[in-house]
Amino acid sequence: MKVITQAMVAATIKKRAVETHKGSFGKLLVIGGNAQYGGAIILTSSAAVYSGCGLVTTATHPTNFASLHARLPETMVIDFQENKALIKMIKNVNTVVVGPGLGEDSVALKILHTVFQTIQTSQHLIIDGSAIDLVATHNLKLPDAKIIFTPHQMEWQRLSTIPISDQTENKNKLTQHKLHATVVLKKHHTEIYTDQSVYQLQLGGPAMATGGMGDTLAGMIGAFVAQFSDQEAAVISATYLHSFIADNLAESQYVVLPHQIINQIPQAMSQFARK
Amino acid sequence: MKVITQAMVAATIKKRAVETHKGSFGKLLVIGGNAQYGGAIILTSSAAVYSGCGLVTTATHPTNFASLHARLPETMVIDFQENKALIKMIKNVNTVVVGPGLGEDSVALKILHTVFQTIQTSQHLIIDGSAIDLVATHNLKLPDAKIIFTPHQMEWQRLSTIPISDQTENKNKLTQHKLHATVVLKKHHTEIYTDQSVYQLQLGGPAMATGGMGDTLAGMIGAFVAQFSDQEAAVISATYLHSFIADNLAESQYVVLPHQIINQIPQAMSQFARK
Amino acid sequence: MKVITQAMVAATIKKRAVETHKGSFGKLLVIGGNAQYGGAIILTSSAAVYSGCGLVTTATHPTNFASLHARLPETMVIDFQENKALIKMIKNVNTVVVGPGLGEDSVALKILHTVFQTIQTSQHLIIDGSAIDLVATHNLKLPDAKIIFTPHQMEWQRLSTIPISDQTENKNKLTQHKLHATVVLKKHHTEIYTDQSVYQLQLGGPAMATGGMGDTLAGMIGAFVAQFSDQEAAVISATYLHSFIADNLAESQYVVLPHQIINQIPQAMSQFARK
Amino acid sequence: MKVITQAMVAATIKKRAVETHKGSFGKLLVIGGNAQYGGAIILTSSAAVYSGCGLVTTATHPTNFASLHARLPETMVIDFQENKALIKMIKNVNTVVVGPGLGEDSVALKILHTVFQTIQTSQHLIIDGSAIDLVATHNLKLPDAKIIFTPHQMEWQRLSTIPISDQTENKNKLTQHKLHATVVLKKHHTEIYTDQSVYQLQLGGPAMATGGMGDTLAGMIGAFVAQFSDQEAAVISATYLHSFIADNLAESQYVVLPHQIINQIPQAMSQFARK
Repeated sequence: MKVITQAMVAATIKKRAVETHKGSFGKLLVIGGNAQYGGAIILTSSAAVYSGCGLVTTATHPTNFASLHARLPETMVIDFQENKALIKMIKNVNTVVVGPGLGEDSVALKILHTVFQTIQTSQHLIIDGSAIDLVATHNLKLPDAKIIFTPHQMEWQRLSTIPISDQTENKNKLTQHKLHATVVLKKHHTEIYTDQSVYQLQLGGPAMATGGMGDTLAGMIGAFVAQFSDQEAAVISATYLHSFIADNLAESQYVVLPHQIINQIPQAMSQFARK
Repeated sequence: MKVITQAMVAATIKKRAVETHKGSFGKLLVIGGNAQYGGAIILTSSAAVYSGCGLVTTATHPTNFASLHARLPETMVIDFQENKALIKMIKNVNTVVVGPGLGEDSVALKILHTVFQTIQTSQHLIIDGSAIDLVATHNLKLPDAKIIFTPHQMEWQRLSTIPISDQTENKNKLTQHKLHATVVLKKHHTEIYTDQSVYQLQLGGPAMATGGMGDTLAGMIGAFVAQFSDQEAAVISATYLHSFIADNLAESQYVVLPHQIINQIPQAMSQFARK
Repeated sequence: MKVITQAMVAATIKKRAVETHKGSFGKLLVIGGNAQYGGAIILTSSAAVYSGCGLVTTATHPTNFASLHARLPETMVIDFQENKALIKMIKNVNTVVVGPGLGEDSVALKILHTVFQTIQTSQHLIIDGSAIDLVATHNLKLPDAKIIFTPHQMEWQRLSTIPISDQTENKNKLTQHKLHATVVLKKHHTEIYTDQSVYQLQLGGPAMATGGMGDTLAGMIGAFVAQFSDQEAAVISATYLHSFIADNLAESQYVVLPHQIINQIPQAMSQFARK
Repeated sequence: MKVITQAMVAATIKKRAVETHKGSFGKLLVIGGNAQYGGAIILTSSAAVYSGCGLVTTATHPTNFASLHARLPETMVIDFQENKALIKMIKNVNTVVVGPGLGEDSVALKILHTVFQTIQTSQHLIIDGSAIDLVATHNLKLPDAKIIFTPHQMEWQRLSTIPISDQTENKNKLTQHKLHATVVLKKHHTEIYTDQSVYQLQLGGPAMATGGMGDTLAGMIGAFVAQFSDQEAAVISATYLHSFIADNLAESQYVVLPHQIINQIPQAMSQFARK
């Protein structure tokens, strides 16, 4: 297992070229947030915008439009139940995040089907939260795309059928190969399984053990993958930065709230871009 | 009466163990906020999240969903009128706070009945605000659970039938024993009656005399009880910290707003965890 | 004309007594904010809460509930069209502010009638914005209460029938006597006409020339009158403090937004309470 | 091409005269924000208020009222589909911004028609975003008013029919003359074409390449034009200040969010007013 280093992150977050525009830094669609879990998609969307993704659109339940825009006017919204608009938007972006606060009812399942049927080989697809459980429960066939799963240990157990106590590097690797997807296994010392390697994060701590932390990471990964060309480096760097910021905040806070991490992303990325 | 000390609080807010996750720090359900008093449940929910509770769900009137999420994306919401969902959620948590902004109409009474019928012996139940008045008015039989009442003096008069002018330590103690519940009697120098002892808070001041202060305390107590194993120590520590933060802010403010206290909780807890 | 001095304000904003509770610092009802002008009542309500009023309730159009609570969970709300609830609430407070963003349609007029019919001699009533125009247009008979008008020059022209160019101290005084009300005439160097005296404000500047400034002052006056026993001193002090804070901010800002003034009220009041 | 200088900006943002009121600093109507793109009009409205415009009204889809007021109580709102109210408001202001998040459907087109039919020769009209595309697609006849277009290069291609690769100073100038309008061509080193001259902005950078940046500029231009008498100087100064603030923030941020620029406008204007 390779330890993720500051140097890897600094090599990924490059100084931006001068002759660029918002289209140069990726187009991201985040899908999630039913009437109960709207906060999740607010965090994912915010993390993506603060991570520098050029254009972010949020597909969610309309009940979340007002709260999302009250916190984040920099995103566009669509109703995730409007299938045509959803398909059009999936085709219009280079990266999709699906799952944060999506729920597991029939509406959620239908949305996930639409994503799987529409996504193309060249697109990045981050499958998070409820969407992981839906894949596991309904044994869904994965589409041909650049897939990244972001399970915590229990979600990984459901998806891989490996019990938490048996989740060793070798067993995880085997499942990763079968899935042909990147896996960000969230735990104390998060592990990232890619086609090439296994990475370990040696940052993060118990101040991060609070609701919404995973939704935030999903948004950061989505934005990094959308704007940086090397997917593996992007996933590793987003995961590192998420805990890097949290650890800084945890020096003076007993608990670190996800939105506090989000607020610090532009400054933290700037630090690494100068290294 | 024992005076609550900084040492008691420092002994409660321990440094978190490294191998933990959000499930390690309690699951809390806060129930309240009708169409008129939605602000109350926003404050309670926010106080709980900023106090480090692992997972917080808010059961409230749907009219409050947007404003709640606009301030606090880190909570999940359910409609407090959906009885099935409410029962399911009560069973899913280790602590329930009921009452902030709940009101006293038939909807509120029905919700309180549901809570009392569903709650289990092992669960903590904080009964605050309107819920105290409902218990008093309707002479409700208390369920078998770890109950904490958080009345101000007038609510205590209604619940205990002891007139404010007669609320002496001995009389309060007798009623506490009959109720078999912890009582946080909010006043200048708040008193806490438990099965073991009576405690006095020697912090707090008139800058705290503003609406929403009690809703905030209820959320802090809920989060502390949900995550720290000793209920008595948790109640005492939350009450202390609430006024400790307020007194700090009152050094430069004529009035201290509840949301300003909430924002300072993670830092204040960190201070005590280091002592 | 007497110039308002820092000493007058310092004499009004006294250190709070220790044995007090939220009921000790006034109960205020602010009425306004139709579907178009909801921002006005948000500013008035916020100014009142930040000025230390013990309990603030906002009667407004329901479309404003979510935005109000998203900014200010420390207030309670009622629908200003529900006549019974409105009457009950007027009877429950010691001070009413009516007018910010109320509009001038038949709904607004009906609300103003309800206020005038319900208010009692002992209560303070601040009549602001649209409510001043309604009084002027419909030639409404004023109720017997402690009335404060807060017109700008054009509103004063409509109410007093004195053209702006003729608004001299003597003419204004005569109308003030006829109205038997306090008049805060907002202009460059605002003038305050009371039964006893005429005061002049020598603070304030063009950075304050922006929408919402008057709504903010109305909330401050409401809160000061509700909590400080001398009405004349309260009106003078609120008016002074409003411009005092603005002038401080204007040292580094080209324009000062009303919500920025509001945020500074607790600190500014603390400064004066220490003098 | 003339380079825009700090001196030009300092000459425009003059110290305000003392004897002024909110009516002295312009009345602005911003029109945009359909159900999907509500964030755009929130940014435009906010930029206008923070730029010191005396009175700002926002005509938008009602779904955006709550989020707009939650962020910005200092604006008034109307439903952009209520034609009578829209016409009345257009007649009541000195400047109109139309387009941010307006969309391109039949509702949007109808609104644009209403604007074009109602606007008067003496009024400033900023045509931004979707409204530019509507003009191009439907080949709309421009009204007789002081028109300012704010296209990015692709929108300019659609409006002028000059392909991006051919957008030379001379060709752009010719089209500007035909349009008889000011053109702010947004790109790396934004160019401004007026009847008198061509200006180049030598500020700005890739940290600004994110959604909502143009909506923010449109609001700043609207407010500057509304309050400063020389339209050309106002447009140049707003454009300069937008990037000036962004560049300052970009010293410590990898990406600069539009709302962060907005928050700094009052301070930045103050700096220039003192030069």
